[in-house]
Amino acid sequence: MTRFARRMAHMQATAEVVRYLFESMTDPQTISFGGGAPAREALPVEQVHEIASEVLTRDRRGMQALQYGNPAGLPDLRQAVIERLLAPKGLHASQENVLIVGGGIESLNLVCQLYLDPGDVILVESPTFVHAVQAFQLLEARCIACQTDEHGLVLEDVEARIRQYSPKMIYVIPTFQNPSGRTMSLERRRALAELGSRYDLMILEDDPYCELRYSGEALPPIKFFDQTGHTLYVNSFSKIFSPGARLGYIFTEENIQRKLYEVKTATNSHTNLVTQILCAEFFNRGLFEPHLQRVCEIHRERRDVLMDCLQSMLPAQTRYVHPDGGLFTWVELPGQVDTTAMLVEAVAQKVAYVPGREFFVEGQPSRNNCMRLSYGNVTPEKIRVGMQRLAGVIDSWL
Amino acid sequence: MTRFARRMAHMQATAEVVRYLFESMTDPQTISFGGGAPAREALPVEQVHEIASEVLTRDRRGMQALQYGNPAGLPDLRQAVIERLLAPKGLHASQENVLIVGGGIESLNLVCQLYLDPGDVILVESPTFVHAVQAFQLLEARCIACQTDEHGLVLEDVEARIRQYSPKMIYVIPTFQNPSGRTMSLERRRALAELGSRYDLMILEDDPYCELRYSGEALPPIKFFDQTGHTLYVNSFSKIFSPGARLGYIFTEENIQRKLYEVKTATNSHTNLVTQILCAEFFNRGLFEPHLQRVCEIHRERRDVLMDCLQSMLPAQTRYVHPDGGLFTWVELPGQVDTTAMLVEAVAQKVAYVPGREFFVEGQPSRNNCMRLSYGNVTPEKIRVGMQRLAGVIDSWL
Repeated sequence: MTRFARRMAHMQATAEVVRYLFESMTDPQTISFGGGAPAREALPVEQVHEIASEVLTRDRRGMQALQYGNPAGLPDLRQAVIERLLAPKGLHASQENVLIVGGGIESLNLVCQLYLDPGDVILVESPTFVHAVQAFQLLEARCIACQTDEHGLVLEDVEARIRQYSPKMIYVIPTFQNPSGRTMSLERRRALAELGSRYDLMILEDDPYCELRYSGEALPPIKFFDQTGHTLYVNSFSKIFSPGARLGYIFTEENIQRKLYEVKTATNSHTNLVTQILCAEFFNRGLFEPHLQRVCEIHRERRDVLMDCLQSMLPAQTRYVHPDGGLFTWVELPGQVDTTAMLVEAVAQKVAYVPGREFFVEGQPSRNNCMRLSYGNVTPEKIRVGMQRLAGVIDSWL
Repeated sequence: MTRFARRMAHMQATAEVVRYLFESMTDPQTISFGGGAPAREALPVEQVHEIASEVLTRDRRGMQALQYGNPAGLPDLRQAVIERLLAPKGLHASQENVLIVGGGIESLNLVCQLYLDPGDVILVESPTFVHAVQAFQLLEARCIACQTDEHGLVLEDVEARIRQYSPKMIYVIPTFQNPSGRTMSLERRRALAELGSRYDLMILEDDPYCELRYSGEALPPIKFFDQTGHTLYVNSFSKIFSPGARLGYIFTEENIQRKLYEVKTATNSHTNLVTQILCAEFFNRGLFEPHLQRVCEIHRERRDVLMDCLQSMLPAQTRYVHPDGGLFTWVELPGQVDTTAMLVEAVAQKVAYVPGREFFVEGQPSRNNCMRLSYGNVTPEKIRVGMQRLAGVIDSWL
């Protein structure tokens, strides 16, 4: 059989676990804290239906939706990104700074195609987002993990690793991080942007959860502090509009944007126009802000219920993150429990999570007694039932 | 400024010309034979509108459209591909053989990520599809062109280059080729599949125009003759449903498909579900076959008008292809006319085309007196006016 490319050798292990999880999640009896989906009750189905019914007709936009489009993205949607998503964060952009892409993973893929050669080092948080690691591995990058604490990346450790590994890039989810739920402090955001400038390396800031804030004060993105064009800001519409629409955006300097345009064209021509038009209209009709409020209310309740359960049902020595937003919390069980081994028993008891081990890469020790719990797409009632099941499994393993 | 990856050095030249063409096509006064778009009059706008109005509601499919989906694609759409597109070509597939992707270029990108390391050789036709070359260059592949004649690839030349370059892959558009409009003969299809098996290299068969046949008899794809799993069949919905929907598919053996699933996941998670559902419903409601008939009628008339114009307006020594389908013809002007230089004058006269030089790569001489004319998205009236303009420009250059 014809030999596969070298990049495929890097992909093996992760894909297996992801498949297993994906399959366990399709059993309707299983309560899964495993996926990263937002609440299905919070999807804007009626709004999209109304927009589609009114817009996908034989007028200008209906035709436009079905014909070829601009690799940079629909101007209306770029404008919505500029005015409704970037400006409120203190980020000032023009159309030439914004590229519409096919979701969050694609934004990572395109940026890394632009910067990473095989063997290049990318620093990541420990723990970090497993699908991002897959995206980096496909480009044969070497992921090196840096220490984190409750305020995010420990910058002394980052700087030491910059000196040791000469990385091309640092990947960071500063707000309601996946998988930990933690948020990077203001001071560290500023300092990380400065590290990018000082060492001439790119900060890849991935911020898909930032709008889902349920408590606390919003912080400016790392990109806000970038004086030299070393931070690339990427985001997704998956949590604030729809995962199935596959939309995201990249905000960066114009010269970098022009290069990303070439990469996008040669990777998949352009992002699908049907959902770009639906999403642009969603913003232009003023539907986004009330929708976001509703999304946050739904998820806030789920977070609060999960926090109650963690406090009341799990062993007293359990440590967990109280996230101010997003979809995840990170649980560290007492003792030597191996959450990977325990998952088989959990799935047998019809409850699923992602074992902590999946989120660790080279550079930091793997912590086998941790797990990520995602509460976004689990109703409050099911959170309680699922946590009872999980508590039972944990008790039997302690 | 942080250094870009090596792959970016391969991309420069092509992108410039594509940008220039793209810009010239946006002037509404210019009649452009430059793009590769199907007739806007042939887009199924009413059908899509009706489907969207009925399906994107708060029932199962409306929710499904907006939530995360399977990286392999929507089962309904894969089934439509199997029954309505593959079976009529004599290709027998199950769901495990079909992966839904985000359009034709993405299908090339995913397949080449699976097989090509930097520096690997991929054989292509001469002339060949310019955006495919970009996709291959982004993966740092080396494109080597093989001779073609009126029946497609000259297989003696292909075999000589296999021995010379040890390629990993051969890229071919066998039906109504882009840019030439030519169709590979039955015997050569069979023989090319056998070459793949004999030399253990992959045949990447790209067949986006095959359904757009206006005259002559349909031929089985190369994949039909593949006994050993060395042919990968990729196709797009851009010409038979909608370019803006960004949908395509890959048909291959199950073990290869599993690997492509990993590549797809790490590149952009999955293809957007909104248009997958709209397209699946388009097939399931029986709308595809009558739509295709109408698409072919519209394009057949345009082809016939263009052939009339080529015969009656251009110099007698002009050679051109009479395509049995698709969207393109290939014109070779008499004498030493440089169609790249002439394009500036043509655009000044409000008519555009793609200069032949763009379609040639290493391995075969570039033919500067050629051009690709695309008639898909030009009305018959505009074809006549545009060809008069073009004939005037050519006369002034001879």
